[in-house]
Amino acid sequence: MDLALKQARLAAERGEVPVGAVVLGPDGAILAEAGNETEASRDASAHAELLAMRRAAQRLGTARLTGCTVVVTLEPCPMCAAAMSHFRVKRLLFGAYDPKGGGVEHGPRIFDSERCLHRPEVIGGVRAEESGGLLRDFFSARRAPRNG
Amino acid sequence: MDLALKQARLAAERGEVPVGAVVLGPDGAILAEAGNETEASRDASAHAELLAMRRAAQRLGTARLTGCTVVVTLEPCPMCAAAMSHFRVKRLLFGAYDPKGGGVEHGPRIFDSERCLHRPEVIGGVRAEESGGLLRDFFSARRAPRNG
Repeated sequence: MDLALKQARLAAERGEVPVGAVVLGPDGAILAEAGNETEASRDASAHAELLAMRRAAQRLGTARLTGCTVVVTLEPCPMCAAAMSHFRVKRLLFGAYDPKGGGVEHGPRIFDSERCLHRPEVIGGVRAEESGGLLRDFFSARRAPRNG
Repeated sequence: MDLALKQARLAAERGEVPVGAVVLGPDGAILAEAGNETEASRDASAHAELLAMRRAAQRLGTARLTGCTVVVTLEPCPMCAAAMSHFRVKRLLFGAYDPKGGGVEHGPRIFDSERCLHRPEVIGGVRAEESGGLLRDFFSARRAPRNG
């Protein structure tokens, strides 16, 4: 989660919503890291965990991340959660819960759907205070009046 | 839908699950086309409609597809449906219904979720027989014994 938090902080420095993700291989080796890139890539789907999964799969040379763990600082949205099923991710560790945009413990609860073909193990709330703090700081700075 | 079906047939020729998609701009102009590329790209998220949306956004130079229509030969999965919300797609036309993997009229029904922030207009079943036929032919050919 240290590395994912680092990616989230780097994203904030780039003016992106501070979410970071890391994909670990079955042996625990780091396969890919990413921060949110929706602004820079002009791609509304360029969420940290989706980018990290795509990069990890590229690195492995397969379309599946069997046995891999995704670590992400925020509860994945429904798009990213469903992508984790497609990539056959073994385990998901996430930081802050996201009652508004989350799709794992909130909203459509992707892995609870009867039709979900692959459900990773899920551990939520890991260092949630740090992850959530980054997001709160980012959005409160954006809302603050600019006097400079 | 003609162009989306053409992309689906091209995907089949490449050994990909035959699904095709087109993104139309607010004026009806074609912004992007794509077929499924999960095998070639070694990317389990490389579904036709997600690729077409990303390409259309690149072309427009924005992260959002406001006013745009996505035409796709198969009911989108939950990942792609949720991506349509992120991209702020105005209208979705899809071909065959997908009771197993669909996420619009089946499974987690992404746009029906209370938390869904943007819901496109949805028209399903457009030339469903042709779209479904391509998929049936593809999978029955795969299951057939190879005598060659």
